[in-house]
Amino acid sequence: MVRIELQVDLDYTVSDPNGADFIFNIHAAHTPHQFVRVEKLVLSQPIAHDVATDPATSSRYMRLHAEPGPLHVSYSATIDIEHYRADHGSLQEVPVRFLPLEAMQYIYPSRYCQSDRLLKLAFNEFGSLWQGHGRVLAIQQWVQRHVAFTSNTSNSNTSAVDTLIEQVGVCRDFAHLMIALCRAVNIPARMATGTDFGADPALGPPDFHAYVEVYLSGRWYIFDASGTGIPMGFVRFGTGRDAADVAFATIFGAVTSLAPVISTRIAQPGVEFEWPSHCAQALSTAS
Amino acid sequence: MVRIELQVDLDYTVSDPNGADFIFNIHAAHTPHQFVRVEKLVLSQPIAHDVATDPATSSRYMRLHAEPGPLHVSYSATIDIEHYRADHGSLQEVPVRFLPLEAMQYIYPSRYCQSDRLLKLAFNEFGSLWQGHGRVLAIQQWVQRHVAFTSNTSNSNTSAVDTLIEQVGVCRDFAHLMIALCRAVNIPARMATGTDFGADPALGPPDFHAYVEVYLSGRWYIFDASGTGIPMGFVRFGTGRDAADVAFATIFGAVTSLAPVISTRIAQPGVEFEWPSHCAQALSTAS
Amino acid sequence: MVRIELQVDLDYTVSDPNGADFIFNIHAAHTPHQFVRVEKLVLSQPIAHDVATDPATSSRYMRLHAEPGPLHVSYSATIDIEHYRADHGSLQEVPVRFLPLEAMQYIYPSRYCQSDRLLKLAFNEFGSLWQGHGRVLAIQQWVQRHVAFTSNTSNSNTSAVDTLIEQVGVCRDFAHLMIALCRAVNIPARMATGTDFGADPALGPPDFHAYVEVYLSGRWYIFDASGTGIPMGFVRFGTGRDAADVAFATIFGAVTSLAPVISTRIAQPGVEFEWPSHCAQALSTAS
Amino acid sequence: MVRIELQVDLDYTVSDPNGADFIFNIHAAHTPHQFVRVEKLVLSQPIAHDVATDPATSSRYMRLHAEPGPLHVSYSATIDIEHYRADHGSLQEVPVRFLPLEAMQYIYPSRYCQSDRLLKLAFNEFGSLWQGHGRVLAIQQWVQRHVAFTSNTSNSNTSAVDTLIEQVGVCRDFAHLMIALCRAVNIPARMATGTDFGADPALGPPDFHAYVEVYLSGRWYIFDASGTGIPMGFVRFGTGRDAADVAFATIFGAVTSLAPVISTRIAQPGVEFEWPSHCAQALSTAS
Repeated sequence: MVRIELQVDLDYTVSDPNGADFIFNIHAAHTPHQFVRVEKLVLSQPIAHDVATDPATSSRYMRLHAEPGPLHVSYSATIDIEHYRADHGSLQEVPVRFLPLEAMQYIYPSRYCQSDRLLKLAFNEFGSLWQGHGRVLAIQQWVQRHVAFTSNTSNSNTSAVDTLIEQVGVCRDFAHLMIALCRAVNIPARMATGTDFGADPALGPPDFHAYVEVYLSGRWYIFDASGTGIPMGFVRFGTGRDAADVAFATIFGAVTSLAPVISTRIAQPGVEFEWPSHCAQALSTAS
Repeated sequence: MVRIELQVDLDYTVSDPNGADFIFNIHAAHTPHQFVRVEKLVLSQPIAHDVATDPATSSRYMRLHAEPGPLHVSYSATIDIEHYRADHGSLQEVPVRFLPLEAMQYIYPSRYCQSDRLLKLAFNEFGSLWQGHGRVLAIQQWVQRHVAFTSNTSNSNTSAVDTLIEQVGVCRDFAHLMIALCRAVNIPARMATGTDFGADPALGPPDFHAYVEVYLSGRWYIFDASGTGIPMGFVRFGTGRDAADVAFATIFGAVTSLAPVISTRIAQPGVEFEWPSHCAQALSTAS
Repeated sequence: MVRIELQVDLDYTVSDPNGADFIFNIHAAHTPHQFVRVEKLVLSQPIAHDVATDPATSSRYMRLHAEPGPLHVSYSATIDIEHYRADHGSLQEVPVRFLPLEAMQYIYPSRYCQSDRLLKLAFNEFGSLWQGHGRVLAIQQWVQRHVAFTSNTSNSNTSAVDTLIEQVGVCRDFAHLMIALCRAVNIPARMATGTDFGADPALGPPDFHAYVEVYLSGRWYIFDASGTGIPMGFVRFGTGRDAADVAFATIFGAVTSLAPVISTRIAQPGVEFEWPSHCAQALSTAS
Repeated sequence: MVRIELQVDLDYTVSDPNGADFIFNIHAAHTPHQFVRVEKLVLSQPIAHDVATDPATSSRYMRLHAEPGPLHVSYSATIDIEHYRADHGSLQEVPVRFLPLEAMQYIYPSRYCQSDRLLKLAFNEFGSLWQGHGRVLAIQQWVQRHVAFTSNTSNSNTSAVDTLIEQVGVCRDFAHLMIALCRAVNIPARMATGTDFGADPALGPPDFHAYVEVYLSGRWYIFDASGTGIPMGFVRFGTGRDAADVAFATIFGAVTSLAPVISTRIAQPGVEFEWPSHCAQALSTAS
């Protein structure tokens, strides 16, 4: 089991005289494999907020209306993650006609994952591969071989097709391209967002992270499309069809913002806790 | 109440030696306002099929695996529609923070409705209008003023942005553009598909149809984006974020097809039944 | 030397009551290596036309104004082609700073050849290759490996980026992608149009054809991007930055058209004439 | 006559160990209406450079190969501009079939001006207007009404179609959209680049500027698509089909750069010289 103490701090200034509405997706999801032991939310304005949980995905959305002026949002939680683990070799693709209905939407194209345009490319590159976990891994490696991780090369309009053409991007773009290619060979795939604990100082401090969940043998498994993180240390906030569904903040009104500040503390390894590390098994935190 | 007898005939030839998988969305939805009194499905191959209903949208998906050779799918049903009706003037937009979670996904951009790119255009055109049903109507009329209905001008890759640029399209394209513009001003909107009974012989026989549902005052109301049909005569099959979710047939494998054949019979008006007509009230068949 | 007797027949109906303007690019170019011995143009309407020759490219543009009603355009010519030939191994790329000014525009992106978006992809695939004719050949082969020739998969809006994503197209699309990739590694490349004599009955009768000219060692050499033709048998009409510049017909007004009919006769091989065949040398018809 | 003393300073650091090639388009064009009285170029590296003039457009391209390390480029010139002036009312559109060949390329679509996709929109908005200067003005005003000038909203990939959708941009984007719309109604239009003298301190200091030239009555007239400058004070460097052709610097190799610094001094008005001002006549500096 991995225990992560997480702190997320967000700073906004609402300049709209009528105030502004926010939808946040910064709460750690409750799943059978991710236990939120304690959590605390502090808002700098005395305002109401509700947190609604999507029963299908466990994503939690906090909505609020903020008044003009500064808004500081501080979320902290202690999260225990006991991953579901499976041997790679045992994981099978599920034929489309046997997919549960709730997985089926994840083979359809979405805003940033235009899988319908990639059918031939995906078939040419991955059509003849042995189906199963190995094929998904081949897709992940293909994405990493063709795309270079480069900050500030993409924006909120960048889609899988753009990333394929321009061959640069950040974790979000890697995830979109990998998702699109999986769907193009009829494997359900979706975007997951949360935090990465920043194991490698060369890659920077803890940060928001976007990665991929792929549906194999009846369960959603984690794939880190960009290969920049350690999946065992990801805290999951939300999952959705792509980044359109799981922005950490969607803002309605005139608002300026500072860069988010994330900090994490991993419980010391010992009898009870494990230090997140690359792992030979497939991991899942989904139900 | 409107009573419609509907018949849908689809003809395929499966050339793939392994057969092919199909997902159909040709079953009339069961909703509190659309009653499927009788229905019958005939497949020309002796194959298993299941029909699953999405609890969130009432869309019904039939999946099957067909063997090589011809496949004829014949669906017939008698459907009674008792629309929920509301006065236009009473219908309000729901602020984002008060939307039920299940409506919220319909303000996010999707594959064919890139509302995120249309924020300024939508704000410039519709930002100062009085909020409510009238604003949605203004969006619909704007779309009809800017787009010409022209057959064979678009394809399965055509999106709202393309339609806005090229100003031609068919019912699907009108729907996508109207949906994108509604979402761009934070009004939940989604694609609905089904059949139009072909009231006007000048516009052709009964056919599959794509239209729009918009969320106002806590309910989804019908808007016929292209203005080519009579909403009171629509039978609803599915709703989704856009055409990606509610194709009448999604096919996995090498298959050729003939044009679908739709026929409808409207029950004679009298004490019990009404003939579908343009109507001064807003209509809904959703729950 | 190759001698080709060419006949092009175009059939239009002008429905615009004001008549319509046409720009045709169906005249064989005069170059030091392509001699137009005889040519004849017949128009079914008694209308004036002029033929202007672009001094930079030798493309010939015929313009005319046709009256309402049918318009038949018939162009026939006997063309002798004495290709400039060079050994592959001797052909060098020309560094950008030594390019003649008239070649420089062909390293810039154009409507259908968005080379600016393909810089990283082209560098990753071709950046480390030995510069010269071999690198251009590697680009041509890469395009042929990644794109399948399939009729009716593209339209007049399809660009190199679309072809790269969707991996299907016709000769025009192959040419656009090859041009874009050459420019992305700073090799001037342009679209050439004309006719292919239809050597292989399996690939159909003579037809309009689009291919590529690449600037190496101070001269423009022919590359058949789609690999469907025999370059020695191409008659060259025009060259331009891409298909936008060298459509065989650009029409201004309401006009319907039939499919063009092309026929060719190759002079019998003997002492004087050669039968077009695949050839171990690089060919050029440019000045 | 307007006399402008212009100074352009560009600062680069070449990090590529092999050095880098540059193409600059920062020399004032020599035209019958723009006289370059004195000019001086200083390079901080002792390197050869050539300046080639495109006979068709008068654009001057300086090419050089710089060694690793800093490169400072300083260009200064004194330019006398005696505009050709014409009454708006007298300026006619030229029918396509009477256009000189060298103007014809400017009715075709280009990289950033996809006029082929805007035919219907342009026809709907401008098709019924009286042809001539007034129609071009209507296009310019339409662009200014639909696009908001906002810094940092576009990048080097942004095209006319993007600007039409997103309705924001800078001078380059206004120019691309206006050019595309002119071409869509068959009016030749091209991109012009140079400097704006910074008349209005609210809009900032002198800067590079992109504007439009439109072909009317046999001559290219200046239109300031974004309406942010005073055309009488523009120094013209280059013209081309769009920004792809007339970047002030195109760089081949690894190079970092600082923001360019432009300064101008306008000769004091008096008997000989005039202060640039908005002007009731159409202006041209083209031959």
